[in-house]
Amino acid sequence: MIDTSKIDNFQNRIQYLKDSVAAVKDFPQEGILFRDITTLLEDPKALKDTIDLLYDVYKDEKIDYIAAADARGFIFGCALAYKIGCGLVLVRKKGKLPRETISQDYDLEYGKNTLEICKGSLKKGDNVLLLDDLLATGGTAGAMIKLVEKSGANIVSFAFIIELFDLGGAKRIKDTYGIDSFSLISFPGH
Amino acid sequence: MIDTSKIDNFQNRIQYLKDSVAAVKDFPQEGILFRDITTLLEDPKALKDTIDLLYDVYKDEKIDYIAAADARGFIFGCALAYKIGCGLVLVRKKGKLPRETISQDYDLEYGKNTLEICKGSLKKGDNVLLLDDLLATGGTAGAMIKLVEKSGANIVSFAFIIELFDLGGAKRIKDTYGIDSFSLISFPGH
Repeated sequence: MIDTSKIDNFQNRIQYLKDSVAAVKDFPQEGILFRDITTLLEDPKALKDTIDLLYDVYKDEKIDYIAAADARGFIFGCALAYKIGCGLVLVRKKGKLPRETISQDYDLEYGKNTLEICKGSLKKGDNVLLLDDLLATGGTAGAMIKLVEKSGANIVSFAFIIELFDLGGAKRIKDTYGIDSFSLISFPGH
Repeated sequence: MIDTSKIDNFQNRIQYLKDSVAAVKDFPQEGILFRDITTLLEDPKALKDTIDLLYDVYKDEKIDYIAAADARGFIFGCALAYKIGCGLVLVRKKGKLPRETISQDYDLEYGKNTLEICKGSLKKGDNVLLLDDLLATGGTAGAMIKLVEKSGANIVSFAFIIELFDLGGAKRIKDTYGIDSFSLISFPGH
């Protein structure tokens, strides 16, 4: 992961991305200010620079695969894999993947969820960049880390488009799993 | 849409992609031979060439937006939008999009489904390329076409990674809606 101060015009480019993310009140439930990436995706300049900036951050790493989360992680995952020239592994919700899978349960605020990858997609020693669109408290991220670690692969870093910085997700990922994360855009979560 | 015979080494490149798609028996239910794109995505060469070939096919069209289907269409949609330099509009299952939406119901074998796009994402006169991973009978594709037509946008073409050619989807899309489609890879559906 390179020092972002070495990337041309980094702060201005990030500000442009930040301005392209819509804030939607009370979605998906009352009291939540939802950070909406659909407006970023609809802007060709913002879409292109999101991928170019992530590429700049990770271009000196040896990445064999990006493992991206169902469903919004898929959006950015394939474009970044294309730019890097690596493979893409889908981390899907339970029952969506054909072939034999390995899985990881995790707790939600109410109930449980399960993530899966195809067995054999990642092997011991593969260098993997994890990717999702949003980092909040880090619950889904933790499950993705545990799932990829089960495969024996090596996690290079965890990339997010947006981090809700005051929810402590990045620190939790670092303290619990020893994994560094990088988020392009930061917003307060409250 | 350009004549594919003008694309370098087209048939061999398509054969490579075809070989990278796994066939999984009895998924998601008995009797179905599922064409699995996860193996294509995991192969950096196949992933890259999928996007490059779609780009070659559409590079002479004026495309403002790609409208991609939830969830596997997202994978290819963003990478192709990145390569073309256009925006990406998400066509999502009901309830997933923030902001006001326009929606389209359609029939499944058992029951109904609804697709949505954000209101205002597409405007009259926008040139839109629709994209999904798989064309079977064309039910989902028809709903996407009707949804995008409600916005007043102009549909350039409908691109698929895989077509199950003997299920008649391409002819149905052409006859019912007057829309041309293009599929990179063809397999029998039975």
